[in-house]
Amino acid sequence: VNKKHNTSGQKTREEILNRAVQIASVIGLEGITIGQLAKELSMSKSGLFGLFGSKEELQSAILQRAIEIFQQVVIVPIQILPINIKRFESIIENWLSYIENDTFEGGCIFISTSLEYDSRPGVIRDEMCQNASLGFEYLEQEARICLNPDAQPNDSGLKQLIFEIHSYLIGANLRYKLFNDRTVFDQARYAISKQLKFYVSQTNNKGRLES
Amino acid sequence: VNKKHNTSGQKTREEILNRAVQIASVIGLEGITIGQLAKELSMSKSGLFGLFGSKEELQSAILQRAIEIFQQVVIVPIQILPINIKRFESIIENWLSYIENDTFEGGCIFISTSLEYDSRPGVIRDEMCQNASLGFEYLEQEARICLNPDAQPNDSGLKQLIFEIHSYLIGANLRYKLFNDRTVFDQARYAISKQLKFYVSQTNNKGRLES
Repeated sequence: VNKKHNTSGQKTREEILNRAVQIASVIGLEGITIGQLAKELSMSKSGLFGLFGSKEELQSAILQRAIEIFQQVVIVPIQILPINIKRFESIIENWLSYIENDTFEGGCIFISTSLEYDSRPGVIRDEMCQNASLGFEYLEQEARICLNPDAQPNDSGLKQLIFEIHSYLIGANLRYKLFNDRTVFDQARYAISKQLKFYVSQTNNKGRLES
Repeated sequence: VNKKHNTSGQKTREEILNRAVQIASVIGLEGITIGQLAKELSMSKSGLFGLFGSKEELQSAILQRAIEIFQQVVIVPIQILPINIKRFESIIENWLSYIENDTFEGGCIFISTSLEYDSRPGVIRDEMCQNASLGFEYLEQEARICLNPDAQPNDSGLKQLIFEIHSYLIGANLRYKLFNDRTVFDQARYAISKQLKFYVSQTNNKGRLES
């Protein structure tokens, strides 16, 4: 047995997944193979198979680890904040910083895997969709409690606002990764601020918003 | 020689590429192989190799064919229109319809290949970036002549407008392909119309815009 390939016991599942998430953000979740990941981590293929069983289980575990990282960077820091417009602005700012600070080497892994799997039926697509649904529901729910608690859960103005803000986030991610152009973050911030002001001006909830 | 695999002479380069573009929009440009495409088209691998030489040449030819199709659907129909706001609105509407009407089975191939190649240096990434640059320049140029001919070529308001409109197009593409939800097209149309009105209200060019 090659000594170099015999160190699987030295890497934890989390260390392996942290590296795998970065690779998947660059080459895609479909491009990942257990053999290639084993080589990159100087582990044995059998060691990795022992941990993940199959390529699909590995892909699913990578997606779960990516969600945990995203939550730690974007969601956890705002959970202690009082419920007002600043809290909502902080979520969006954290989300933009998560892209701007290259949390994932290849850019937002959820955007790239969404486009990778949108036409590939299967377990990974289902997990991807469910995660994206939860993400949109979370954003809508935060927007409602922070910006307009009197709005109905299916308020079309709130859904419109979330569509627009989410579009800026993926627009910034795409142009930043394609052209390495950081001015898109200024454009995204300007657009987000404009839409938030527009939404707030349309609601009758001024007192709470200025608190 | 298997008879089924011996029909390469019967398909033109354009017919082959039309099918290849659809496949690439679903599984990605990197996932395409000459062997698999030959099987799908009931052609011999050697017949395809004779036409394209290498996987990279095939990928490049697919990208070029996709650009031609995009131009036929989105750009050519507006070129006869007089230069005013309606012309610009028509480009954006054609662009949105190109997504809504499933021109490519797997969604906008430029968005998915942008995210597929943004972190993969090489010829395909370079061609992708150049095409995207030309696309943004074209949109900016059309916005300028149609909405505000007095603006400087690098007008930041125009760049902001293009960032926002492009974001809605990719936002609609992503959510439509992920959730098969067509309400995103209404949300995109509403957002586009709102931003166009906002931009127009910021310019001093009302007379031309109302013409």
